[in-house]
Amino acid sequence: MLVFVANLGSTSFKYSLFSMKGEAPELLARDGYERVTDHAEVIADSLEKLKADGVIQSADDIQGVGFKTVLGGEVTGCIAADDVCLKALEDNSDLAPAHNPPYAAGIRGFQQKLPNATLVALFETAFYQWMPARRRRYAVPEEWAEAGVKRYGFHGASHKFIAERSAELAGYDDLADSIRSLYVNGPSEKGARNFRVISCHLGGSSSVTAMRDGIAQGSSMGMSPQSGLPQNNRVGDLDSMAIPLATKRLGLSMEEIERVLTKESGLLGLSGVSNDIRDIREAAEQGNDRAQLAREFLAGSVRDWVGTYFFTLGGAERIVFTAGIGENDAALRAEVLTGLEDLGIVLDPIKNESGERGERKISADNSKTEVWVIPANEEWVVARETRRFIENNQ
Amino acid sequence: MLVFVANLGSTSFKYSLFSMKGEAPELLARDGYERVTDHAEVIADSLEKLKADGVIQSADDIQGVGFKTVLGGEVTGCIAADDVCLKALEDNSDLAPAHNPPYAAGIRGFQQKLPNATLVALFETAFYQWMPARRRRYAVPEEWAEAGVKRYGFHGASHKFIAERSAELAGYDDLADSIRSLYVNGPSEKGARNFRVISCHLGGSSSVTAMRDGIAQGSSMGMSPQSGLPQNNRVGDLDSMAIPLATKRLGLSMEEIERVLTKESGLLGLSGVSNDIRDIREAAEQGNDRAQLAREFLAGSVRDWVGTYFFTLGGAERIVFTAGIGENDAALRAEVLTGLEDLGIVLDPIKNESGERGERKISADNSKTEVWVIPANEEWVVARETRRFIENNQ
Repeated sequence: MLVFVANLGSTSFKYSLFSMKGEAPELLARDGYERVTDHAEVIADSLEKLKADGVIQSADDIQGVGFKTVLGGEVTGCIAADDVCLKALEDNSDLAPAHNPPYAAGIRGFQQKLPNATLVALFETAFYQWMPARRRRYAVPEEWAEAGVKRYGFHGASHKFIAERSAELAGYDDLADSIRSLYVNGPSEKGARNFRVISCHLGGSSSVTAMRDGIAQGSSMGMSPQSGLPQNNRVGDLDSMAIPLATKRLGLSMEEIERVLTKESGLLGLSGVSNDIRDIREAAEQGNDRAQLAREFLAGSVRDWVGTYFFTLGGAERIVFTAGIGENDAALRAEVLTGLEDLGIVLDPIKNESGERGERKISADNSKTEVWVIPANEEWVVARETRRFIENNQ
Repeated sequence: MLVFVANLGSTSFKYSLFSMKGEAPELLARDGYERVTDHAEVIADSLEKLKADGVIQSADDIQGVGFKTVLGGEVTGCIAADDVCLKALEDNSDLAPAHNPPYAAGIRGFQQKLPNATLVALFETAFYQWMPARRRRYAVPEEWAEAGVKRYGFHGASHKFIAERSAELAGYDDLADSIRSLYVNGPSEKGARNFRVISCHLGGSSSVTAMRDGIAQGSSMGMSPQSGLPQNNRVGDLDSMAIPLATKRLGLSMEEIERVLTKESGLLGLSGVSNDIRDIREAAEQGNDRAQLAREFLAGSVRDWVGTYFFTLGGAERIVFTAGIGENDAALRAEVLTGLEDLGIVLDPIKNESGERGERKISADNSKTEVWVIPANEEWVVARETRRFIENNQ
């Protein structure tokens, strides 16, 4: 089975083609376009290129196309990318303006170009469908919740992968199996063993997710991708009353406020230096106080959320770091988990700082909670979920 | 020394008169007025009444008047209620519209009526002056922070009292002494022993504060009293993007949004039943799902914040419950701290549910972290801080 994974931005289109023989997808091709103005055009071009390169004989060789869609309100899961899905994306464009419109455009493009392929939408919110009720709410009136003011949670593809891999690495085969098939079969008691994992996806966009036996118990991201941890240039958690204050004291319009909170805040706003933690770290080492504050803020915020979930779950078997910052920033991992010996969490500084790549345990042997780094591979996740959907719907 | 404690609301005025001979203020009189339209008038009336009742001979017997002021931006501490203080209150009325204007009116009233008394403002934010820098910030640009978008923290009078009492109850006399004189002498190394206390002030308005050796390390309330835990009818933490969403999807004006978030949200909004946790509990017991959700939301949110701080501090010597809900709702305390044996926190169910009043330890003997109930006495706190200020400024 060949699965095409389409990654769409407002002005970009990246794609990968996988052969799905074994459990590990085999990458056949990967490419992309920038400064895209017409998504249909680059979709057609990418398919022509795959043919010209001899990777496929005809567009019909592609059995599935997977989309890592972001937010569809109550429409979520790993589902057919059909008209219901399109409507949900369009209805929620106000909450995910950078993501929903290009995905809707991409899905329409593939509906035209590959009428025989199965189009699959893997929503970033899918993993959070089974969170405890209170974790899906804010303390607003029912009418507001019905209008969409709820905690959806994001980065579901990445965190579910961490759930699967953590169970596999622990040797809990039945549990791993239940988690892999979560979107096909729903939650299952099979393999349940109160296996508690706190997953820290830290990159340009960051979140912490708690899970018990592969079922999400909470996400640091709530209604919008602007909430939770400070993001590269998005604000993260903020007192909502800051918005009326900004209209009054700074004289800003709602559009200007949204721009500041989604483009000029987060690590960029704090540091005044950059939205990239590597630049910020360099500036901090050179004595820039605001850059130092930004670093402390990020590490401290991750620590806060890990703490929230560690306490909620009454402890954890695994704490996992993934994505760009999570995989590479040993100093940040150390700050997040320093001084927790009394809670049974002990990093091994040599393993943490080894600079190794790949999956690795970085906690000390006497650490009750194991700490791991597990590299993210979101294209894999989309390809595998797409295959599972197709096999289940044949 | 006689100290008058003035508690002002938009349409109310309550007062107490204390004799400050020993460490425990002695209450001489307490009374109040509702449906107040002219604060100066009721202030005059209260003083006449104290004379008529023979509690004082003349208004000049009152040496100090203490005000538990809320928010003065960068103006904070336990300070003279003078013109600088008045300006700070007025400049921040947009963030504390229910509290700052009546306090400003009250201070002006006493300036006129008791020109020889020392007027003292104990800001609710005072306790948070020495929080770590990152705990005082949001991830917004510097310009926003300078305009006041910062984490101030509130309920400082109550939480500082918990800090004092916890050190006294633990027998740490030097530390207790340092904490008592915090607003006079600033932070001190005297008695420092890494004594970590997490204080849960749960009432009509609620917050959790972390402290180490009596210095606040964080507050669940941030910029406004609408943030943090769900309040009786105020929203608590909310994705800030809910405000632009409410303008678009619910067609509300900013004034309407502020009204909903400050008057129709929190426990009232969640439950649809009441803003009083006792009514909500009753409704939940009768099978009302939304009431049950509101209860779980409150308990879960308290647990989240306690967890954040327990982890931040690497553990805690004390967890303390105070104020109306904190002192009386044993079921809620049990929900907040259930299943934490692995973290060294074990409630004694019999002690927790005994219905006793007064200061009491409610953790089991094998609990590494002691859990206490300590009744709030905010008037005492204001009276004592007022005396300390006067004695220090004589």
